Amino acid sequence: MGDGQGLRIIPLGGAGEIGKNMYVYELDRRLVIVDCGVKFPTPEQLGVDLVLPDFSYVAERREDVDAVILTHGHEDHIGALPYLVKAIGAVPIYATRFTRGLLRGKLDEHRLREVEVNEIAPGDRVQAGPFEAEFVRVAHSIPDCVAVALRSRVGLVVHTGDFKFDQAPIDDAPTDISALARLGDEGVLALLSDSTNAEVPGSIAPERTIGPELRKVMATAPERVIVTTFASHIHRMQQVLEAAHHDGRVVGMVGRSMLRNTNIAMNLGLLRPPDGVLVSLRELEDYPRDEQVILSTGSQGEPGSALRRIAHGDHHQVHMEPGDTVVFSARAVPGNELSVNETINRLSRAGARVLTQENANVHVSGHAASEELRLMLRLLRPRFFAPVHGEFRHQRAHADLARTVGVDPRRTFILANGEVLEVAEEEAAVVERVETGLVYVDGLGVADVADGVLRDRRHLAEDGLVLVVATLSARDGSPIGDVDVITRGFGADDGELIEETRMEVERSLAVSAADSVTEVDLLQRQLHDTVAALLYRRTRARPLVLPVIVEA
Amino acid sequence: MGDGQGLRIIPLGGAGEIGKNMYVYELDRRLVIVDCGVKFPTPEQLGVDLVLPDFSYVAERREDVDAVILTHGHEDHIGALPYLVKAIGAVPIYATRFTRGLLRGKLDEHRLREVEVNEIAPGDRVQAGPFEAEFVRVAHSIPDCVAVALRSRVGLVVHTGDFKFDQAPIDDAPTDISALARLGDEGVLALLSDSTNAEVPGSIAPERTIGPELRKVMATAPERVIVTTFASHIHRMQQVLEAAHHDGRVVGMVGRSMLRNTNIAMNLGLLRPPDGVLVSLRELEDYPRDEQVILSTGSQGEPGSALRRIAHGDHHQVHMEPGDTVVFSARAVPGNELSVNETINRLSRAGARVLTQENANVHVSGHAASEELRLMLRLLRPRFFAPVHGEFRHQRAHADLARTVGVDPRRTFILANGEVLEVAEEEAAVVERVETGLVYVDGLGVADVADGVLRDRRHLAEDGLVLVVATLSARDGSPIGDVDVITRGFGADDGELIEETRMEVERSLAVSAADSVTEVDLLQRQLHDTVAALLYRRTRARPLVLPVIVEA
Repeated sequence: MGDGQGLRIIPLGGAGEIGKNMYVYELDRRLVIVDCGVKFPTPEQLGVDLVLPDFSYVAERREDVDAVILTHGHEDHIGALPYLVKAIGAVPIYATRFTRGLLRGKLDEHRLREVEVNEIAPGDRVQAGPFEAEFVRVAHSIPDCVAVALRSRVGLVVHTGDFKFDQAPIDDAPTDISALARLGDEGVLALLSDSTNAEVPGSIAPERTIGPELRKVMATAPERVIVTTFASHIHRMQQVLEAAHHDGRVVGMVGRSMLRNTNIAMNLGLLRPPDGVLVSLRELEDYPRDEQVILSTGSQGEPGSALRRIAHGDHHQVHMEPGDTVVFSARAVPGNELSVNETINRLSRAGARVLTQENANVHVSGHAASEELRLMLRLLRPRFFAPVHGEFRHQRAHADLARTVGVDPRRTFILANGEVLEVAEEEAAVVERVETGLVYVDGLGVADVADGVLRDRRHLAEDGLVLVVATLSARDGSPIGDVDVITRGFGADDGELIEETRMEVERSLAVSAADSVTEVDLLQRQLHDTVAALLYRRTRARPLVLPVIVEA
Repeated sequence: MGDGQGLRIIPLGGAGEIGKNMYVYELDRRLVIVDCGVKFPTPEQLGVDLVLPDFSYVAERREDVDAVILTHGHEDHIGALPYLVKAIGAVPIYATRFTRGLLRGKLDEHRLREVEVNEIAPGDRVQAGPFEAEFVRVAHSIPDCVAVALRSRVGLVVHTGDFKFDQAPIDDAPTDISALARLGDEGVLALLSDSTNAEVPGSIAPERTIGPELRKVMATAPERVIVTTFASHIHRMQQVLEAAHHDGRVVGMVGRSMLRNTNIAMNLGLLRPPDGVLVSLRELEDYPRDEQVILSTGSQGEPGSALRRIAHGDHHQVHMEPGDTVVFSARAVPGNELSVNETINRLSRAGARVLTQENANVHVSGHAASEELRLMLRLLRPRFFAPVHGEFRHQRAHADLARTVGVDPRRTFILANGEVLEVAEEEAAVVERVETGLVYVDGLGVADVADGVLRDRRHLAEDGLVLVVATLSARDGSPIGDVDVITRGFGADDGELIEETRMEVERSLAVSAADSVTEVDLLQRQLHDTVAALLYRRTRARPLVLPVIVEA
């Protein structure tokens, strides 16, 4: 192994965590990239807007990249593509209709109007560098998803993307079991499969079980019904529109991303509102409250989202009233629990009845559960297996499942970002690790938040800032005038402590002057240590201490 | 109402949220306080260590406080007591044995050794100001819990504290249904009851169902078993010790709070380890790994906790090995999901099998679910009802439950912090609101983190800091020497932008000097606006801009 003859598979983004999926398939020094997603930051990543995969490996090899293939249109699979294009330049991109529609808007926002996206459909085969890529229809929580089968001289590799085996989906376009069976019969060298729900027993209930529940909710709701879901969950919205229509209600929509996505979906015939059900918010006002439904973004309680503003009484068009019913037709993505909770509490306090996944059947997951994962493994019978997507805990659970259907644990690989799995006909191994790190987007810039910057921010955030400004004579280093002590975000800034700090600084400067210390760096370090020690003694806090020495 | 004749009930801490429970009962201008808890900060409360109830109402009335009664020893019910004592001085405190034991350590840490705590037991009655307080045994997830019945000339009020109706608890001391029935027969004017699990259907499984599951885990675990739970959950630890003993294993403990609490519990006879099962970590090393169990703190993935350090390979005594089993015998408290997840992923990656509430029956809640809450309401049949504890969503669900067992919604009150519910024999109403706010503890000080300070910290945390230092002639305000631009935690600090900022500042100062502007405040404001606008234009970030003007 490691002789460069095998197929190299390299996760660059999402290994062992939720979000920013990006996989490189490399053969004979040519690269094909599958997916290129973003991750939303954790609360500790202060001020970061987005987290990207580390492109450096592919950026260095930009000449060798033959194609980018996208499995579906979720942010964690396509969100980083504009940044990738900026990093490596034009490259053939392949995506299904809806994915392409979503991506188009994204590229336009980034002023990448000239970048072309090739439309593909399930069943299509395209040549992508050393691979023949075949697309297999899969069901998920967004329309138009595909798994990717990559054929090459080494063998057939299947990358599932996100999927579930819903056999009666809303668009009547289920995961193509026959195609998967055919691939299995052909012989699968390696499988990379979605692990998100590997800890969930059984199978995920079909998406269409939500419709009847929504009809029941609308039939019994005394007043307005507000439904929130993911802005890309077109099939969920279809069911909301139909349930509302069935109950003689009309539907208004709030939230920019939802309006944009439904527009794309309607143009492609993927969302088909029953006649007359969809109205503008202004028209909605003319109907009695018990004939109103609002479809809203904000299922994650995101600050600034429509539902969060409604819950806080801050929305300029939609006002909640006691008696309204709010349906969270979504789960809280890990890390969003507190903001979802905050929103639910606000709504409850304002008199709303709030329905969630926990107290009503108003949501099903888009990811295959244990029995479905076993089915995928049985269909494809891969020689080598890498559980992907989801966190390490899920990948380990997926590996355990695989063992129960005959996948040899020694042929199962849980990969970390940058780890290179080299696969040949008879053997596979992790042969090296390419460099990967974290890349943050903050404001307009990419990769402009270094880890040191985040460390400073955390420090500032913990205990605030104390600034000490001293003016020294350029001639002999003796202090001129008063020392200034300025604090920001520092809790214990009572006058007494500030005064004590000032005096301590003046004392320290006087000693230094007597010792003829005039080197500014050294003086700054002395001042820093003196002040930090004093403040820690008095307050047990460690603000960032910044000594500024001005020579005049 | 509002004539001062009724009984006033005032939540000061935990209304509508988890944590920092504190309730004031006021009659004839005398006050009795029930519970005094802390809350742990959310990720947005940067650098805050603890959040306390706002004591100002009781501090102003310190002469009128007759007693503090504690229902049980959890932090969210007793954690703020030392701070209350410092604020209002000595006051009679009543607590059961174990609560008193935990509180004693807490008071000693705060150098409040002289403060006495009166020991009470279920069934006791004590005179607390205008109230006769009777204590009723309840089951929960910590030993020695009581509900409090307060009799007065107005009537009988029952405050449940946290409870569940486990009829076969580990200590054979179940919630005293007979005593509650007797109180119900006597006639309950008002009930304040635990709402935490009001959204959970049915009843909570008995604590003793965990034991057999733990035995199963130990019997099948190939190597060491690490169990983590709340450090005060003595009955859970008892079951871990017994399961280990049953499987021929020995148990070592890690985590300071667990060692401290088990010590107290053993001294009081509440924890009874089977002979020889408890060993020191050093002794543990002498046993084969498949005979080892470790009981550990860190069930919330808290940074610095024993389990978190073990997961990161940072613990100096305990090292994980592939094949070890880790049992989370606890739920993730809201807000801790990410850190729990992170710990589980680390452990999974290191080769551990991780069992949680989701994939094994290794935890039950300490709070009554719907059917138990209905039982409490049926037993007590209160005239007025205030659902307390838990968040607003839970209190609303509890109010809905109460309606189904005959409690008039017009006699049900969901209270916010500071709202005064005045209860008389025939009527009750919210009559006013006393001032309450947020009080933070940071380092050594109480209440020393104002909201403005948190705002500054958030600002610093988001986009960092840019410091501009200019020296002006004290004579005519003309700039002397170079302008300094210093950044901390600011992402886009490339040399070019810094240089541009410097030049912009010099230009602005030159203009001001030409206009004969010498007032420092005004100059600072001008500099601030100039620099902030430039940086926003260039980076779309809004760092905290601090202009420092030195007159020399």
